[in-house]
Amino acid sequence: MFKLLKKNGSARRGEFKTPHGTIQTPVFMNVGTSAAIKGGLSGPDLENIKCQVELSNTYHLHLRPGDGVIKQLGGIHKFMNFSKPILTDSGGFQVFSLASLRKIKEEGVYFSSHIDGKKIFMGPEESMQIQSNLASTIAMAFDECVENPSPRDYVLKSSEMTVRWLERCKKEMSRLNSLEDTINKKQLLFGINQGGVYTDIRQDNMKKIAEMDLDGYAIGGLAVGETSDEMYRIIEDVEPYMPQDKPRYLMGVGTPINILEAVERGVDFFDCVMPSRNARHGTLFTSCGQVNINNKKYETDDTPLDENCNCETCKNHSKGYLRHLFKSNEILGMRLAVIHNLYFYNNMMEEIRESLENGTFTQYKKEKISLL
Amino acid sequence: MFKLLKKNGSARRGEFKTPHGTIQTPVFMNVGTSAAIKGGLSGPDLENIKCQVELSNTYHLHLRPGDGVIKQLGGIHKFMNFSKPILTDSGGFQVFSLASLRKIKEEGVYFSSHIDGKKIFMGPEESMQIQSNLASTIAMAFDECVENPSPRDYVLKSSEMTVRWLERCKKEMSRLNSLEDTINKKQLLFGINQGGVYTDIRQDNMKKIAEMDLDGYAIGGLAVGETSDEMYRIIEDVEPYMPQDKPRYLMGVGTPINILEAVERGVDFFDCVMPSRNARHGTLFTSCGQVNINNKKYETDDTPLDENCNCETCKNHSKGYLRHLFKSNEILGMRLAVIHNLYFYNNMMEEIRESLENGTFTQYKKEKISLL
Repeated sequence: MFKLLKKNGSARRGEFKTPHGTIQTPVFMNVGTSAAIKGGLSGPDLENIKCQVELSNTYHLHLRPGDGVIKQLGGIHKFMNFSKPILTDSGGFQVFSLASLRKIKEEGVYFSSHIDGKKIFMGPEESMQIQSNLASTIAMAFDECVENPSPRDYVLKSSEMTVRWLERCKKEMSRLNSLEDTINKKQLLFGINQGGVYTDIRQDNMKKIAEMDLDGYAIGGLAVGETSDEMYRIIEDVEPYMPQDKPRYLMGVGTPINILEAVERGVDFFDCVMPSRNARHGTLFTSCGQVNINNKKYETDDTPLDENCNCETCKNHSKGYLRHLFKSNEILGMRLAVIHNLYFYNNMMEEIRESLENGTFTQYKKEKISLL
Repeated sequence: MFKLLKKNGSARRGEFKTPHGTIQTPVFMNVGTSAAIKGGLSGPDLENIKCQVELSNTYHLHLRPGDGVIKQLGGIHKFMNFSKPILTDSGGFQVFSLASLRKIKEEGVYFSSHIDGKKIFMGPEESMQIQSNLASTIAMAFDECVENPSPRDYVLKSSEMTVRWLERCKKEMSRLNSLEDTINKKQLLFGINQGGVYTDIRQDNMKKIAEMDLDGYAIGGLAVGETSDEMYRIIEDVEPYMPQDKPRYLMGVGTPINILEAVERGVDFFDCVMPSRNARHGTLFTSCGQVNINNKKYETDDTPLDENCNCETCKNHSKGYLRHLFKSNEILGMRLAVIHNLYFYNNMMEEIRESLENGTFTQYKKEKISLL
């Protein structure tokens, strides 16, 4: 299903066929935690900002409105009115970062909801069942995400358990995809590489999960405390052991520079809340560097945020107006800012793909970084 | 500039030519207090919800970002990117409802900003100057808006002062429109009828301001404490004294029923924050009555809010999804709800205009009210 079209060193230009359409890679997935992009963007809005894949969070949707509700409403695509591919995470990361009173056992994790304190159990099977109810295009395996750095002993045991969990995920997904009332019977499953900052654990884990012939492979447990350089080093450590014929996804990453560096090291999929979160606080990416739109100097600036940008915000509005919206706490400011930042990311990915096609990625990367 | 096309009893179908295009009346103006519709709608969004006239608030824009800033940015049309007619109120109503420590004198009003406590003076000339800087299509006269009921003596004196203020407004507007650096040299001025709930004061005031040959006439000081029936009675009191060849504007009104009743009594222009404010709290108008989208019964409802509605929200989203957005505090919920409620109002005005053209307004009104 993944076709490698061209390589520039380790960097890959590919395409990934899914039941909801073909994804051109490298790709940045736009995060809509609760089946909505924070900042007021709808499914149809995503079509206008070059979004290829939307990412929603299993943990949040399981708690509210409940995956059963979404199943009754026809699955997440129909629910949020977005027909292109949607990836759901496993819930694991949120169980470890948001939930309280959690207890990790071989069977899974016991925890309390961050919304109402309700006691919940989630293991590999439950995560797959929830994601099957959501009927996303791509489901992520249920894993334990450890923070960096963590003691070697703990990381080793955890990564071994994550492999056992992955086997259970694969089995359960296969069962769910064969059930008559499953909405998306062709749901794909990505495995997740873990191993903290330890090269040998990472590589060993990668070799084991590569054997399972999954639809794609993610590198998890990064961007959780380590430096960017350490992150790049870990990608380099595991990349040789990742199947060439499967897409690779670096979870929760990152800044434009992080993405360019990771593409160079052979990564195809990315996601990050940062561009939309920064946007909601008025920090905006442009082709000439970052802009804090709250700055007084933009008060009477009648030029667009970025002269080189074709997003709805830049085509229609001035920096002066955007600043006014932020100073007046108008929701419209957030919406226009999120539209711009996500467009910036999606457009950068398009430029990356073009440069890979032309064999000019190295040059493009250098120029882009000098402007960021 | 106002052309009366057809009458059904006192109800009027007309059109009003302005420097920013022709307004088909009766019309509902969509309120964007700080040059943005609360709920995240932009100027271009207004084009999609059948909005003919946007209304912004002089008081708010004078305080933030400042009318001088908007003038530097080319006026309010360019500022918010909306090319159709924009009406600005005079600031009077907000001075009397929001500002603190106000002192009313013959020359104008001394008050403190509700944002930072800054001491400000606003009189007829200042209001005209601010509105000229904003460069709206229609400026409103600076008046004192008294609450209902107020003592007869006070209302009489106030309405007499409002006439003197109106003369000063007209003179100042004329001067401003002749200045070289004025952005909209064809800015229109509407006078405002006052007089509380006292028929003779209202009528006397209306006769006096009618003589001034202004571009339009508003009935002010209603929807500020009196009953709907009293409001209808006052419209009936003053309507015979309003020029037939000028548009009539009932300020700050109202519910769909209020609008239908006022159209029947000869009113052409309306504005109200209620539809967008209600929308932001999940109360939505439909062709079959009001809906509180937070209601549990909509949790798994996959039908649109209103099967008969062609707005973006109803064309693209289910009640179940809308409810989820509200329960999850997603801004998208507010945006979709505001789009729907404003479209409902603008569309109802279109239906009113059609029924007036067909001579079936009375029947339309009766049927519509039975469904609200």
